[in-house]
Amino acid sequence: MDINIPSNHPRAKSLYVRELLVRGFKNGLVAPEGLIAQGRGESFDYLLGEKTSKVAQISARAASSALLLAKCPVLSVNGNVAALCSNEIVDLSNIVNAPIEVNLFYRNNNRERAIEKQLKESGAKIVLGVGSRASAIIPELQSERRRVDPNGLYKADTVLIPLEDGDRAKAFVNMGKTVIAIDLNPLSRTARSAQITIVDNIIRAIPRMIAAAKQLMDKNNKHLMERLVKEFDNRENLLESLRLIQGGIGARPRRY
Amino acid sequence: MDINIPSNHPRAKSLYVRELLVRGFKNGLVAPEGLIAQGRGESFDYLLGEKTSKVAQISARAASSALLLAKCPVLSVNGNVAALCSNEIVDLSNIVNAPIEVNLFYRNNNRERAIEKQLKESGAKIVLGVGSRASAIIPELQSERRRVDPNGLYKADTVLIPLEDGDRAKAFVNMGKTVIAIDLNPLSRTARSAQITIVDNIIRAIPRMIAAAKQLMDKNNKHLMERLVKEFDNRENLLESLRLIQGGIGARPRRY
Repeated sequence: MDINIPSNHPRAKSLYVRELLVRGFKNGLVAPEGLIAQGRGESFDYLLGEKTSKVAQISARAASSALLLAKCPVLSVNGNVAALCSNEIVDLSNIVNAPIEVNLFYRNNNRERAIEKQLKESGAKIVLGVGSRASAIIPELQSERRRVDPNGLYKADTVLIPLEDGDRAKAFVNMGKTVIAIDLNPLSRTARSAQITIVDNIIRAIPRMIAAAKQLMDKNNKHLMERLVKEFDNRENLLESLRLIQGGIGARPRRY
Repeated sequence: MDINIPSNHPRAKSLYVRELLVRGFKNGLVAPEGLIAQGRGESFDYLLGEKTSKVAQISARAASSALLLAKCPVLSVNGNVAALCSNEIVDLSNIVNAPIEVNLFYRNNNRERAIEKQLKESGAKIVLGVGSRASAIIPELQSERRRVDPNGLYKADTVLIPLEDGDRAKAFVNMGKTVIAIDLNPLSRTARSAQITIVDNIIRAIPRMIAAAKQLMDKNNKHLMERLVKEFDNRENLLESLRLIQGGIGARPRRY
């Protein structure tokens, strides 16, 4: 598929990302509902000025620290994540030494396999959570959403859940895990449940996390990383992100 | 397709509307990009508290007045509109005596025909803008987006364009038409280009327009309708809608 965006369109970059997702949809990675979810994120990103805020940078640093310090970190990937940044997720997985698990809200065999294939093409050696691997159950959830890999999300102590549903985010917290979310809506249940929420577009957030992890991964930084996690205040982060969105609405250039 | 939403989900109603659109997608009415656009609207609706504001009510009244007063009004319908409220659009069309025209951003023959079929099943007798009917050109646009029906949008003096692209909204204004938009984002180019913008979910806006039209359609109300249109201030309407969104962000109940 060619991605053909009129270059003079005022929001060409956002349209390009949108077309990446439509391509992922046509390749069987993304559910129709995933396209709608992308749109919801687009609005918040638009109100944030489509750029990474200072608090989002701080969150990304804390998130990478938490993953590097974890005994058993896992990166959860759904169709939208695979369509938008499979290369970057595989890079992050290698750097923080965390396996990738496919974890779908609308689970079906074809989509699982398509996502696994995409991740392997991006260099992933092992992809958890596919087919009969997803045999463990998240206690408080119903339906196919509750299935996870016993060697992955089930036993993980720290999980990165980009673009996640609120019920599942909360269930992971209730299982005692450290939960890192990437969510553009600071009011969402996912954003409010997680211990660390990066309020940023995943397209920008994962590269930030990679850069932070590369910078921090030295053993000598253990105390620094512990401090970054300990001093991180998610409540203040979300309130500040909300203020930016409110301010963004007021400050956007416009003519009526 | 069964629409199966967990009834205890805090946003069950919004999920139901979303599934209506996914169904429209599966029936060939809606483009993948239309699903993303739906998501963008959802975010603004969420910030508006998913209810019709007072200014949106006033806008709907002014909009119905403008359509009733017009010599040649036309209702533009795309895939999302047909999927979400084809019955209501046909009702409105009958009440304000305005034909319906299929007008697509991502035009293709199958989608045109699927939308025409849906509208006819909802009772529309004539559907403009399909196939070779769409032979007139909007001067300032490129690509398939510029094709309109010479007996419909091309010669119309007043057009209702729900969920429309900014370029095309502006082009209609530049052609001298009175443009009525339905758009949940008061900052969008469509919202800012139109003379009357209803900042509301189309699911709620069209029934409001129908109710207003039924109430106003008496000939004796001509002066009242002229006054409603004349006194309508779209700039103030959009600023007030923005204030509601900003206030909604601050006031939403939340626990961190």
